[in-house]
Amino acid sequence: MKYPCKAKKEFNKNINYSNRGMSLEFLINETNIYYEKKNIAVIYKKPTPVTIGKVTYSNKPTVTKGYFKSKSTLDYVGLYKGKYIDFDAKSTKSKTSFPLSNLHSHQLKHLKKVINHGGISFLILEINDLIYLLDGKDIISFTQNSNRKSIPYDYIKKKGFLIELKYNPYLDYIKIIDKHLIGGKNEKEN
Amino acid sequence: MKYPCKAKKEFNKNINYSNRGMSLEFLINETNIYYEKKNIAVIYKKPTPVTIGKVTYSNKPTVTKGYFKSKSTLDYVGLYKGKYIDFDAKSTKSKTSFPLSNLHSHQLKHLKKVINHGGISFLILEINDLIYLLDGKDIISFTQNSNRKSIPYDYIKKKGFLIELKYNPYLDYIKIIDKHLIGGKNEKEN
Repeated sequence: MKYPCKAKKEFNKNINYSNRGMSLEFLINETNIYYEKKNIAVIYKKPTPVTIGKVTYSNKPTVTKGYFKSKSTLDYVGLYKGKYIDFDAKSTKSKTSFPLSNLHSHQLKHLKKVINHGGISFLILEINDLIYLLDGKDIISFTQNSNRKSIPYDYIKKKGFLIELKYNPYLDYIKIIDKHLIGGKNEKEN
Repeated sequence: MKYPCKAKKEFNKNINYSNRGMSLEFLINETNIYYEKKNIAVIYKKPTPVTIGKVTYSNKPTVTKGYFKSKSTLDYVGLYKGKYIDFDAKSTKSKTSFPLSNLHSHQLKHLKKVINHGGISFLILEINDLIYLLDGKDIISFTQNSNRKSIPYDYIKKKGFLIELKYNPYLDYIKIIDKHLIGGKNEKEN
């Protein structure tokens, strides 16, 4: 597969870590396109929720007043082998911990619900120039057993799964889901 | 459970069939709230996709130019017993068939993908003052075996599952999923 110029440019941006949030999102979106093309999984980004305030009809319907709603769910949804998958991507510049203020209380509640109903939910975290997949079960367990306002990097290293940046696809997180998260098993827990 | 005034009003509206699309959507949304409260399933309506053209920042960020994107997926997504569920609600005034023009080609493609990956996908159809759940597999099978531009009512009656309108919840479609759609079985097919 040849990479279009845009992909190359964005990928380099990520290596420079000049535009963290966007780059992580870009890498995940490209990975999802790869999964879809290769018929591995169907995973997509949910639209940004906008409350439509006013619509005008010249040429085509146009929103002329709309407000951003706070997200009550996570950013990505999809399915792999019939299983429901729901996750979010978060970047932090902190080198020692992931601040839980990055995860809205509604989002944590949603993550809990998904797991309670047998779905797969997790965060893809960018910290210290590395990318980890942290199982929702470990996030819930942490919040239930600690009053800390951030998840220490040591906990992420211990419980999380490192996703190595590579080509085809950039971030092969489905491999981790397949090996560690499906069927409720999480090898790192044992 | 006591019904709030709004619910009663909307419910009566549906009985009068004066506002079809909205009412079916209302009944499904209320059913989903019931499922969530009773901890049966987590199913929600996807946000309307809007391309953000211009945002102004007075008081709070406001979309001052936004365009509606055509939907490439179905309206509702969620999970039940760990399974991925994806469906849409459609109403038709036609008494003899469901016009396939109501289902965009992108939506049909998405439905196929979901089923190919082991998910559950279907349509909730309002036709002749009755509400049916039609399994995505039967929709695909119909489009593959016929060049017709609409699904005859007879096919819907034969293959679809009637959802009776009742209280608590209004449209208990999960019962049908549980009985007929999970694990790939579809009793009506045999």
